[in-house]
Amino acid sequence: MKLEGIYPPIATPFDQDGELYQAKLRYNVEKWNRTGLAGYVVCGSTGESVMLTTEEKIRLWEWVGEYAAPGKLLMAGTGMESVRETVALTNRAAETGYKAAMVRTPHYYKNLLARPQTQALYFRAVADQAKIPIMIYNWPQATGVDIAAEAVAELSHHPNIIAIKESSGNLEKVMQMIREVKPGFQVLVGSAPTLWPSLTVGAVGAVLAFANAAPFATVTIWEAHRAREAETARDWQERIARAAYLVTVKHGVPGLKYAMDLNGYYGGPPRLPLTPPTAEAKREIEEAFRDLKG
Amino acid sequence: MKLEGIYPPIATPFDQDGELYQAKLRYNVEKWNRTGLAGYVVCGSTGESVMLTTEEKIRLWEWVGEYAAPGKLLMAGTGMESVRETVALTNRAAETGYKAAMVRTPHYYKNLLARPQTQALYFRAVADQAKIPIMIYNWPQATGVDIAAEAVAELSHHPNIIAIKESSGNLEKVMQMIREVKPGFQVLVGSAPTLWPSLTVGAVGAVLAFANAAPFATVTIWEAHRAREAETARDWQERIARAAYLVTVKHGVPGLKYAMDLNGYYGGPPRLPLTPPTAEAKREIEEAFRDLKG
Amino acid sequence: MKLEGIYPPIATPFDQDGELYQAKLRYNVEKWNRTGLAGYVVCGSTGESVMLTTEEKIRLWEWVGEYAAPGKLLMAGTGMESVRETVALTNRAAETGYKAAMVRTPHYYKNLLARPQTQALYFRAVADQAKIPIMIYNWPQATGVDIAAEAVAELSHHPNIIAIKESSGNLEKVMQMIREVKPGFQVLVGSAPTLWPSLTVGAVGAVLAFANAAPFATVTIWEAHRAREAETARDWQERIARAAYLVTVKHGVPGLKYAMDLNGYYGGPPRLPLTPPTAEAKREIEEAFRDLKG
Amino acid sequence: MKLEGIYPPIATPFDQDGELYQAKLRYNVEKWNRTGLAGYVVCGSTGESVMLTTEEKIRLWEWVGEYAAPGKLLMAGTGMESVRETVALTNRAAETGYKAAMVRTPHYYKNLLARPQTQALYFRAVADQAKIPIMIYNWPQATGVDIAAEAVAELSHHPNIIAIKESSGNLEKVMQMIREVKPGFQVLVGSAPTLWPSLTVGAVGAVLAFANAAPFATVTIWEAHRAREAETARDWQERIARAAYLVTVKHGVPGLKYAMDLNGYYGGPPRLPLTPPTAEAKREIEEAFRDLKG
Repeated sequence: MKLEGIYPPIATPFDQDGELYQAKLRYNVEKWNRTGLAGYVVCGSTGESVMLTTEEKIRLWEWVGEYAAPGKLLMAGTGMESVRETVALTNRAAETGYKAAMVRTPHYYKNLLARPQTQALYFRAVADQAKIPIMIYNWPQATGVDIAAEAVAELSHHPNIIAIKESSGNLEKVMQMIREVKPGFQVLVGSAPTLWPSLTVGAVGAVLAFANAAPFATVTIWEAHRAREAETARDWQERIARAAYLVTVKHGVPGLKYAMDLNGYYGGPPRLPLTPPTAEAKREIEEAFRDLKG
Repeated sequence: MKLEGIYPPIATPFDQDGELYQAKLRYNVEKWNRTGLAGYVVCGSTGESVMLTTEEKIRLWEWVGEYAAPGKLLMAGTGMESVRETVALTNRAAETGYKAAMVRTPHYYKNLLARPQTQALYFRAVADQAKIPIMIYNWPQATGVDIAAEAVAELSHHPNIIAIKESSGNLEKVMQMIREVKPGFQVLVGSAPTLWPSLTVGAVGAVLAFANAAPFATVTIWEAHRAREAETARDWQERIARAAYLVTVKHGVPGLKYAMDLNGYYGGPPRLPLTPPTAEAKREIEEAFRDLKG
Repeated sequence: MKLEGIYPPIATPFDQDGELYQAKLRYNVEKWNRTGLAGYVVCGSTGESVMLTTEEKIRLWEWVGEYAAPGKLLMAGTGMESVRETVALTNRAAETGYKAAMVRTPHYYKNLLARPQTQALYFRAVADQAKIPIMIYNWPQATGVDIAAEAVAELSHHPNIIAIKESSGNLEKVMQMIREVKPGFQVLVGSAPTLWPSLTVGAVGAVLAFANAAPFATVTIWEAHRAREAETARDWQERIARAAYLVTVKHGVPGLKYAMDLNGYYGGPPRLPLTPPTAEAKREIEEAFRDLKG
Repeated sequence: MKLEGIYPPIATPFDQDGELYQAKLRYNVEKWNRTGLAGYVVCGSTGESVMLTTEEKIRLWEWVGEYAAPGKLLMAGTGMESVRETVALTNRAAETGYKAAMVRTPHYYKNLLARPQTQALYFRAVADQAKIPIMIYNWPQATGVDIAAEAVAELSHHPNIIAIKESSGNLEKVMQMIREVKPGFQVLVGSAPTLWPSLTVGAVGAVLAFANAAPFATVTIWEAHRAREAETARDWQERIARAAYLVTVKHGVPGLKYAMDLNGYYGGPPRLPLTPPTAEAKREIEEAFRDLKG
């Protein structure tokens, strides 16, 4: 299975009562369907998965499964701390038609889970029981655990572990993994500010929160890279730099949702304790997205 | 409500298939009922709460509610990342007869949640809607977020936030909070290796994983402190030092469960990716608990 | 050699041109001579040793050697990154009459120096060649390296390594070291906010920046502890809490120097890039020291 | 002044007694003179500057000044914690003919020095008094302080601060600085494993420890980049990857010195507490450098 291209980990739309907002989800997905995005990741960190109940996740998978255009590859964010719950969710997503599962590194019991062998044990146990292939998901800025490149290299030999989404932004680690994994194992990145450099060193794709609000810009970088048009890729990378920083690092999901509202998608409110951006943050975002419509 | 004394955050017993093991839970609780433990915290970190489904948590609350001796104060671990899910769980525990809820600091979106004002917003929103009082739960070693003493001081003025369980082991912070919180707000600690010093500087109690396996020793330190028998308290603190280190810091929940097995409780296996201690770890634990029976 | 009691790591007085201010050093030392301080540490972190040339350090050692009252034990801060320079400085201090050397953990090449065996190698190599005994000095908040308790336990068996000054404020580590070091090896602490609890668990003394400005208060805690007057010790610990926090953690050496000025010592300006406290910081310090004269 | 190209921060040769080894320094410099290296940085971190006395630094500057071929640009590592000592060293280097000074971020008093405004104050104060231009040097892996991109952007407007050597390997920060600094301010990097990607995003050069042992390979990457031969650059980047990792991150200066010995330069022993690589480390290095001669 090829995971090339750009995937948004889609934001979860809530109404003003904080309930899932099905109509707006449909609206967003149908709008993204008309872009060059390669597919969708449903219930990732940007989807506020840690704020969702299991029932809500299942509903989201079903809805996106219904609204996504044919040809858009569907991945489900299914990682939980325990192997058993992760397997159960993964196989539920598989039944709903998802092609792969993005599984976050377990991390709560850090003193034990920071060990490479415990990470490897978890992913092997999940992959052994999962009915669809697994993409490892590493975001140490949130989890506080950074899976070692060596552990990823080892896991790349498991037949049901096919990729990693590395969101640290650490290009040296991305390069090391590309060198050391089994041929065919796919390294995707999750950091828009370093998208183009990551592609130049061999990443095959990216799962980018930023792509929720600015799919065109991210797909343009991808396509310019494929066409070996380095100047265009660099230029667009430059153009998204400030906006990508604001809605990923600085203002997070609430900032991204505001940018979606600006750009013709439904962003809406995050769930508490996340709160909409302040007036000042909104101004920063507006300014950064002025020339990044659509 | 007085939270004085020693509380175990009770370990969750699983059978060999990883299912909740009701009979062993009953066995453990009835054995703890005969000790000087002040009550029980059900579904804390030691209870592998991050490995449990909502349904399992509710069953555990019900079972412990049934088995606990009268006079044992019952607290429920109910913290989730979202305000709404935490409120829902807290009020479910309240209906089951729990007297207070222990609520972990939200932490996944670290760049946003590390801000004191966001922590304060979360706890106020939860406390406003909760039908039972809230005890803040801070364990930065797991969450990667350390709620500031200043934020705790501010939250201590909320009428429905009555305590903090500070598990960092940072005595300077414990002292600062005791100085700065509203009179009557209760500071408990969660680190057995510094139990006695924490009591000497004014902590009113403790929620200790270690108390699952060695309730007598921890209650003895508590009672010696109350009786102003500093030598006895210091002596017992010394006696538990190595064992407490092994089953909290070094070998975590799996180590603690093994120590419970050694000491006449049912520990049993943890859920994957946690695994039983290695043979070498078992030997270390056996040696450290040789003189800490019961 | 007994290192019991309270030692200020003395602040280095500079004049308005940033030169060593000999007259003020004499003034301070002669004033401290009349207190219950056990001795002086010259050229520690509080003495801005990293801002001093070798020649300046030697002058400071000579001057304090001349001004100190008989009976005040003199220790020299001599730690440099290399073994050879540390040995040279230590033996220079020995020639000047210093009785012990306080040697900071080397830390610049962190990926190599964080290893316990490299720390052990360094301290053994220094101690083998030093003409006076060595006190290990650990302040991870500045160095970014935290020497492991196990390494200290091992080093405690070296005949020329007699003590550690542990400035992390980590009481659990202090307790672990006291348990595990060779009998007779002396554990001192360097954190005023946890002075009394540290003494209760067995620390034999303290090297406290705060003692520069408030020797009486710190010596009172020490003496109350020796006399087993827990209430008095706790009470004074409480009284110094805020002031100690301000001039160690929050405002650092510049804050301490300002507090010295307030309390009848010469503090004066720090060396750039350290700068005198802001007006607001000064007000905080003034308020905290209002009842801590002398 | 243009700082384009590749600079080794030259390793300091010591003889078996740990003394400066002038003949070997001459040998190394004369051999490097015949490569495409743009110049030399004398007394940087790789030069074990924290292990050198002031007198030794001055001698090294003089010797390299004498041995360097005309056209090789000479920079001196002069950063000390205090402004005054840094200025004194910088102006001493200027008198010796050095064209620029590389000044490390001050970092010992981390709680104060981590503030962007304190870093800015330091660099402005140094630059105001320095007779040669300043290149900021940021290596947070050693110092524990990471100067903010915003502070660098601000400092780029000082007429005597002309460049930064960013050694964190954080490409996102490199990109941010390149966007935000004053036009003409030069961003160099200090991390060989990300050399080529850094050049593609706009770094003008690099100061690379690895270039001590493998000048040809690093210069080749530089020249391929200049000639827009992306394939060649990527290919050589790949070829140096493992070797660069070993002698910078994993085995540090001792590993690099061993690699120099392998490649026809004099590496020799580091100063204690650094120690020559173990037999196993040596084997790793030998293997990685097998195809990186010269």
